[in-house]
Amino acid sequence: MPPVITLTTDFGEQDVYVASVKGVILTINPDAVLIDICHTVEPQHIAQAAFIIGEAYRHFPVDTVHIVIVDPGVGSRRRSLAVKTASHFFIAPDNGVLSYIIDEVYPYSPAQPVPELAYSLEKRKIDNSIQAAIISNPDYWKHPVSSTFHGRDIFAPVAAHLSLGVPLTNFGKLTSSIHTFNLPKPCLDSEGKLIGCIIHVDHFGNLISNITYKDLKSNKVRITIGNETITGLSQFYAECQGLAAIIGSSGYLEVSLEDGSAASYLGVIKGDKVVVEGVKVR
Amino acid sequence: MPPVITLTTDFGEQDVYVASVKGVILTINPDAVLIDICHTVEPQHIAQAAFIIGEAYRHFPVDTVHIVIVDPGVGSRRRSLAVKTASHFFIAPDNGVLSYIIDEVYPYSPAQPVPELAYSLEKRKIDNSIQAAIISNPDYWKHPVSSTFHGRDIFAPVAAHLSLGVPLTNFGKLTSSIHTFNLPKPCLDSEGKLIGCIIHVDHFGNLISNITYKDLKSNKVRITIGNETITGLSQFYAECQGLAAIIGSSGYLEVSLEDGSAASYLGVIKGDKVVVEGVKVR
Amino acid sequence: MPPVITLTTDFGEQDVYVASVKGVILTINPDAVLIDICHTVEPQHIAQAAFIIGEAYRHFPVDTVHIVIVDPGVGSRRRSLAVKTASHFFIAPDNGVLSYIIDEVYPYSPAQPVPELAYSLEKRKIDNSIQAAIISNPDYWKHPVSSTFHGRDIFAPVAAHLSLGVPLTNFGKLTSSIHTFNLPKPCLDSEGKLIGCIIHVDHFGNLISNITYKDLKSNKVRITIGNETITGLSQFYAECQGLAAIIGSSGYLEVSLEDGSAASYLGVIKGDKVVVEGVKVR
Repeated sequence: MPPVITLTTDFGEQDVYVASVKGVILTINPDAVLIDICHTVEPQHIAQAAFIIGEAYRHFPVDTVHIVIVDPGVGSRRRSLAVKTASHFFIAPDNGVLSYIIDEVYPYSPAQPVPELAYSLEKRKIDNSIQAAIISNPDYWKHPVSSTFHGRDIFAPVAAHLSLGVPLTNFGKLTSSIHTFNLPKPCLDSEGKLIGCIIHVDHFGNLISNITYKDLKSNKVRITIGNETITGLSQFYAECQGLAAIIGSSGYLEVSLEDGSAASYLGVIKGDKVVVEGVKVR
Repeated sequence: MPPVITLTTDFGEQDVYVASVKGVILTINPDAVLIDICHTVEPQHIAQAAFIIGEAYRHFPVDTVHIVIVDPGVGSRRRSLAVKTASHFFIAPDNGVLSYIIDEVYPYSPAQPVPELAYSLEKRKIDNSIQAAIISNPDYWKHPVSSTFHGRDIFAPVAAHLSLGVPLTNFGKLTSSIHTFNLPKPCLDSEGKLIGCIIHVDHFGNLISNITYKDLKSNKVRITIGNETITGLSQFYAECQGLAAIIGSSGYLEVSLEDGSAASYLGVIKGDKVVVEGVKVR
Repeated sequence: MPPVITLTTDFGEQDVYVASVKGVILTINPDAVLIDICHTVEPQHIAQAAFIIGEAYRHFPVDTVHIVIVDPGVGSRRRSLAVKTASHFFIAPDNGVLSYIIDEVYPYSPAQPVPELAYSLEKRKIDNSIQAAIISNPDYWKHPVSSTFHGRDIFAPVAAHLSLGVPLTNFGKLTSSIHTFNLPKPCLDSEGKLIGCIIHVDHFGNLISNITYKDLKSNKVRITIGNETITGLSQFYAECQGLAAIIGSSGYLEVSLEDGSAASYLGVIKGDKVVVEGVKVR
């Protein structure tokens, strides 16, 4: 089975950065299958990259190697990690970009008050459900190593060697902690309303919240966002008339507009509040 | 020969949608070669996607599987199809997105009055030149199936299984009809002028019409578009001075501007009229 | 080892052009691994494409075939070349797009006065360090050949056959010259200041100059760009405070802004002047 390596970066599509990473990988492992997840993460937007890789990875084959390069601290003393979960590998700076991956194994508790999006990093303990090596062995790097492009000179060759079967511990010592930020999670206010926030605005202008279908007691909900209120959930887009709420393909509550962009229509952006009434307590 | 699977969508390039589709395919068929045709179809613009796949598919190897996901009706009762032509496979909603493919085998007659672009869907009979199965067998789907993302949960796995050699009829019963819209085709007006329209504006601002080289009697034509008139055809772009008409790489008459965008210069958009004098009757 | 073929074009991402090229290649060589370097070169901007392929190619495996399609003269009498350097192959129009590749083997001397960017083409002699065949043998083309899309009908099939091991001379006769433009190179002014210019603005707004680390005597430099002066070099981005100068990942001196776009902040564009004081004479 040819090994799959995915790429999630903030490199955009006008420069040689993405291609350079791919060239380095193919030089080491010519059989690697390279898949772009996203290169349009906003420059240095760690939380956005974290959400994207957190959604995308699960659809890939077991043992896929996922490289995440949103790395404002490149060249500084920030750590880089090679991480192995039950089913996937990740190569990334230790800057919170794997927060959703780690949270899936070690959920935060209690939920983060929302909509304050405090992306402050915390060291989180990991046990043997996740292995994380601190990348430090230059034998697997491309030399000379640029101080501004570890994606090309460290992450790419490490990912390529990992895809060839090199054990994680060859890249450096295991660590028992990873830096993550507290994910924005919905919580109940004093009146029993569920308060969430928008965590992603997609290409269609759909507003994706951090509230999941598990947070909702029934379809009998009233959703307030921007200056509008939506009653009930729709089952699919074509059913929507005007503004509608729907459980999207990743299980999150999202707000859509028939034949248009809900984001533009409502003037709502990432981080804005969503309020749901008629919810079950978890 | 490794199987090729292409993707044409309106997903844009900022979300996880394209990558999710690819991950699902590679999980089922790790040897699939995945090629992006276009992900920047305007949201829900079925006619644009139809034109793009209608142009692109012919350059791919025999037996390529082409997935088209421009699917405003996802989750509703609209049908999804797995289609086999003489040389290629297509997986798409039955919403007109395969109109150019079907029209190549069963040309419409008479030509559609132009430039009224009436993209109303009609049921068209197909015979055994084309096989079309209504996708209905959940054994080949990814579960649970999201009501908003059949591209990932139905089209992707069906395409992957098709590329592994699963027979078309395993996915569902054959149908004898496909929904298509009447393609905008050039027609003669009462004065003998050929009236066509712009069906695509490319990245360079070239205006691509629905008039083909077969519609033209000779190079001795006068072309009227916007407020301008062009006399004669050029052979290649470098020969053009100012505004020029040329037979483009797909055989369509197109209008170009030397060192610039004809679309911006003329203020012409998709659907606008092109008039050609001095033409042969088909 | 599966052969790698890369693509650098000005086709954008909304049309079928890139996909058509890929389809033609895969039809001839189904095992080719296709990698996009860049498709967002500004329309017909030969110098930009030359810079991009000149940077990117070096990171790919030996014997990679690089196709460059920025070809305003397509269909005219401009020559097309299949080029073999010590380690890589290139398929491109003979319009200067390989200037950086050729310059690496046959450096220009003396340096071009800068910042006048005179991209006038000159015929440069090559010896046996580089082989260049003038593409002329239609046996390896896709027919009928469109006069407007040699990328699809000539470059793609030639690249595919080359990747299958067809010798260079099968495609046409060898030539002893290639057209290149004089690369903008830094030079000393009468006061001993090094005058360079910005040759690329990247996705992050970093301003990349044509001054390399080899041109600098030490880190003790004062850099003037736009209306600002920067003293000293930083080692990595996270260390930068406000505006900073750094040696980037390709060895060029670049100017960055902490958490922002140096290009926007300074109002500097490609071709603008950079002055460095405290430099060594080469």
